[in-house]
Amino acid sequence: MPFFPTRRLLNELVNRAIVYSHNGDPSKVLTAFSYRPLPPPSPNTVNVKFVLAPINPADLNVIEGVYPAKPTPISYPASSGLGSDNSVFVGGNEGLAQVTEVGQGVSGLEKNDWVIMTKPQIGTWCTTKNVGAEDILKVPQMDGLSEVQAATMTVNPPTAYNMLQEFVSLNEGDWVVQNGANSAVWSLLSLNLRKSCNFASQVGQAVIQIAASRGLKTLNFVRPRDNLEELVNELQNLGATKVLTYDALADKSLRKDLKEWTGGKEIRLGLNCVGGQETTLMARLLGNDAHLVSYGAMSKQPLSLPTSLFIFKNLTSHGFWQSRWYSQKSRDEQKRLMDLLANLMSQGMLKAPSHEVISISAKESDEEAGRKVREVIAKTTGGQHGKKVLLKFSID
Amino acid sequence: MPFFPTRRLLNELVNRAIVYSHNGDPSKVLTAFSYRPLPPPSPNTVNVKFVLAPINPADLNVIEGVYPAKPTPISYPASSGLGSDNSVFVGGNEGLAQVTEVGQGVSGLEKNDWVIMTKPQIGTWCTTKNVGAEDILKVPQMDGLSEVQAATMTVNPPTAYNMLQEFVSLNEGDWVVQNGANSAVWSLLSLNLRKSCNFASQVGQAVIQIAASRGLKTLNFVRPRDNLEELVNELQNLGATKVLTYDALADKSLRKDLKEWTGGKEIRLGLNCVGGQETTLMARLLGNDAHLVSYGAMSKQPLSLPTSLFIFKNLTSHGFWQSRWYSQKSRDEQKRLMDLLANLMSQGMLKAPSHEVISISAKESDEEAGRKVREVIAKTTGGQHGKKVLLKFSID
Repeated sequence: MPFFPTRRLLNELVNRAIVYSHNGDPSKVLTAFSYRPLPPPSPNTVNVKFVLAPINPADLNVIEGVYPAKPTPISYPASSGLGSDNSVFVGGNEGLAQVTEVGQGVSGLEKNDWVIMTKPQIGTWCTTKNVGAEDILKVPQMDGLSEVQAATMTVNPPTAYNMLQEFVSLNEGDWVVQNGANSAVWSLLSLNLRKSCNFASQVGQAVIQIAASRGLKTLNFVRPRDNLEELVNELQNLGATKVLTYDALADKSLRKDLKEWTGGKEIRLGLNCVGGQETTLMARLLGNDAHLVSYGAMSKQPLSLPTSLFIFKNLTSHGFWQSRWYSQKSRDEQKRLMDLLANLMSQGMLKAPSHEVISISAKESDEEAGRKVREVIAKTTGGQHGKKVLLKFSID
Repeated sequence: MPFFPTRRLLNELVNRAIVYSHNGDPSKVLTAFSYRPLPPPSPNTVNVKFVLAPINPADLNVIEGVYPAKPTPISYPASSGLGSDNSVFVGGNEGLAQVTEVGQGVSGLEKNDWVIMTKPQIGTWCTTKNVGAEDILKVPQMDGLSEVQAATMTVNPPTAYNMLQEFVSLNEGDWVVQNGANSAVWSLLSLNLRKSCNFASQVGQAVIQIAASRGLKTLNFVRPRDNLEELVNELQNLGATKVLTYDALADKSLRKDLKEWTGGKEIRLGLNCVGGQETTLMARLLGNDAHLVSYGAMSKQPLSLPTSLFIFKNLTSHGFWQSRWYSQKSRDEQKRLMDLLANLMSQGMLKAPSHEVISISAKESDEEAGRKVREVIAKTTGGQHGKKVLLKFSID
């Protein structure tokens, strides 16, 4: 899928992508790149324009080169004179797009349909794109489903949904325990211990809401903080049954309280994005035959669990990665889940994460656009940034 | 099931049991206890005499009160004058017995049949016992199946067999990695971190042999030691493909060597009875979608694993406990496995562990018998005792 780059003129109606040609610090290696309007779509593909595309922590790890999923480079003609490399990578994995033109042989998609990406690392930080019909899914446009919700529905909400679904058969009234329940801090995770890899999510909040929609009770652990009461209220408003800090895990009275809350019912599912001592203590709250599912490692500490929990209490410890789920499930299964999540969203049962939209106008130069993206990334990775940042390109 | 204790006279033909009335250090709380010959068996039960009963590490943890499985106390008449307590526990979980008398309604068992115990903590350290027909399984008496093999077939060999069977579907030529491959040292394991719990097994050697009988390759890790070459030869004679020390795990060349040995085939099953850093490093040798099964914790360190292995490589971590297996499987399934193991043993494909038989003659007093058992236990728990100790009571 070649790009046809163009020397950008002010006010010219062109497309733009946020790209990098080599791995490195995203706040340094990303640049903006303009390209000519797309040619008509080839058979079995469609042209789309992006509505909103989030900057997810994992996207930054991909750019750093420390994430196991790798994007496919986009080649452009050597004659373009844009450098000695003849390929770049477009950033972004997730986003909401709208169909602009449908290629031959594509069924079930029409102009103006909303679509989301199911092929990982497809490169969503751009104005327009030609995509394979198999790499996208149509999202129903319905009352109450916002652009932000649709643009952020392929990673965090299905992670939460699947973790609640795939490991333990839970019935109404059953309990789930999770840490990182607020999940707005950045964490370190990498296959290569020597490199660090940022990872975070709004998964915890999605867990609370999806669990509540199923009548499941949640015991949520968060870091101690000054504005704790505010956070507790916020999570309870989302449907959290109990919200405690990690400090409570060290308190001996917790077991007694827990027994009272659960009526003695054993907790069989624990969700972990923290690791370290907090998770060791949380795992001890689980009952027999329980499953601990990890999807992050905010504490930067490994998952350390007493062997006796595995042997005598039949604990099973798993990981969950939504990218693997997409690679293993049929389009029908993917579509069923996206429709289900869209329905929850439109009914107000799964809210948009708190967010900030960064608009990039066509009037800005590539240099300006590139700097804007680098700066917002430098700001988000510099510390805690509770809000999800989404990119919005205007083409005029 | 009441006992009828008797004041023991020298040379009297009586039965004897190794018992304790309260939890504590087995080398202190165990005593020998004589009792009258059993009455005829009630319906659906049989009387048996024990041929050989091993002293397993877990038996000692049961006596200490730190093991999750608890025995049922045996009551005796208060009138016996043997103390103010009116119940004792008989030690021992495993053993080979021979049927002496069959109660009404019992089918498939005859006098002189060999039987093994499938009810955990039934109390095997005694001369004779009345047992429920449902709590035992007949073992075929066949050429090449020794008393020692039959007496030690209900814990370690099925642990090894099931761990190779229940988690990953392995085909001939596939690889399995394990630590504690020699499994003759004592380890600490307990649900309660504050108490320590001895645990060890000859599981590692059974894994090597059963894997070899299925055409599976094994990569075996053992502690570095002076007589390493001797041990390597011993394990290779049992069928081990490769034997390395934990030191090799820290060596960067291991991955390259491993790739050469396996032809690049990923290892999908790891068996762990060590925990700690050795297991962390071993887990890194596993391929995608692998399963790590823990059955011990010799290092006394928790199982500490990078979260990224769970998320990105889809590692699953389990525990295995043969007692749970018995509680969950039908008698048919239990019988099928015991027959299969007996066949492997009789064909010389699963050898008896190296062992030592402690004989207790009827001529010895209860005091002498008790002291003998306490002394042998003090010796085995004092440090490394590579041999399995089995008790043999003679009734004359």
